[in-house]
Amino acid sequence: MKINVVSKILEANERLAADNRKLFDSHGLLVINLMSAPGAGKTTLLTSTISELAGDLQIGVVEGDIQGTYDAEQIGALDVPVVQINTGGACHLDANMISEALKDLPLADLDVLIIENVGNLVCPAEFNVGEYMKVMLLSLPEGHDKPLKYPLMFQQSSALVVNKMDLLPYVDADPEKIKKDALSLNPQLKVFEVSCKTGEGISQWTEWLKEIHSIHKKNL
Amino acid sequence: MKINVVSKILEANERLAADNRKLFDSHGLLVINLMSAPGAGKTTLLTSTISELAGDLQIGVVEGDIQGTYDAEQIGALDVPVVQINTGGACHLDANMISEALKDLPLADLDVLIIENVGNLVCPAEFNVGEYMKVMLLSLPEGHDKPLKYPLMFQQSSALVVNKMDLLPYVDADPEKIKKDALSLNPQLKVFEVSCKTGEGISQWTEWLKEIHSIHKKNL
Repeated sequence: MKINVVSKILEANERLAADNRKLFDSHGLLVINLMSAPGAGKTTLLTSTISELAGDLQIGVVEGDIQGTYDAEQIGALDVPVVQINTGGACHLDANMISEALKDLPLADLDVLIIENVGNLVCPAEFNVGEYMKVMLLSLPEGHDKPLKYPLMFQQSSALVVNKMDLLPYVDADPEKIKKDALSLNPQLKVFEVSCKTGEGISQWTEWLKEIHSIHKKNL
Repeated sequence: MKINVVSKILEANERLAADNRKLFDSHGLLVINLMSAPGAGKTTLLTSTISELAGDLQIGVVEGDIQGTYDAEQIGALDVPVVQINTGGACHLDANMISEALKDLPLADLDVLIIENVGNLVCPAEFNVGEYMKVMLLSLPEGHDKPLKYPLMFQQSSALVVNKMDLLPYVDADPEKIKKDALSLNPQLKVFEVSCKTGEGISQWTEWLKEIHSIHKKNL
């Protein structure tokens, strides 16, 4: 009984996600669902990415949080279109929330829309919102045991960004083991090692985004 | 309709949690539901706590993970009773899972049972498992914005342990702001600042646990 209900919720979400995807594709928009545990640095990666791509790609942002507008204010200060979703307790974004948020975004003016999901390594991976690809962020201090303990998100993502690499001398976490275990779960995963604090690795990540944007636009 | 179903699940969980609590109380057992985001250091706090309290209090552990037995093996190596629960995708422990796990624990021999929940700052706070108190762990690198972004867990917990204080010189996170915002959400919250790596602050935490255990046992 419980399984039936959950499965119906997931089916309804998939239908709405497909509608969102059609809308995104009609605007030639590359949409990324950005996921991580709380505090891995999603908003900081966003601000670095927006600055690095300024002049190349017009980025819009949807911010998902349980409550508050702190992240949206940080993004808004960079003068890019941003919409805040407050889930009011829900642990992930779903396609319906995104569908509502899209009404307040100038989709025709954007090249890339990045959806910052609620900080959570589990639930967001189960709900498509219509994105072209999922990207996950893991911060080095979270430890190298995360891929094998939270496999679904690593399996569902197209890219893994390992952040806070500047803390490598001070934490007991091995980035090689993260990479090895993540690739064992998902051999196609593209892995980036970055520090949003020092800027290390950010240009490799943004160059790859430009490449994906260009390929995606050509193939639409 | 969706709300009804969820509310029935929560009601059923509360009934099972009450049964667990009766069983815990009949054994004079102090039970702690330990929650945090992934990688905050729950298992490391457990190993430090078990070592520090050896000879004073007999501790048992329930390990909750999506999959794998890595944490349970670390705890088992310390020669304390441990049961691993694999939730198989579920983002939190519930009272029924705990009820099953209890069958494999020598409750009469224990003073304290610590239940390490699935790494998640959102969902575990909604499900009581029969514990006497909730304790949450936040690691400093997660940032000082967490109390206001994930308020429920801070509101539900009796104690907040801020871990990885040894990283203070290297991260942009203010422990005073964490404390201030957490206390604004929950003025009764007991706050500890620790580093499981250096041992800083661990004895204050374990002394408090001994005190709570003694009061709890007296009042049963």
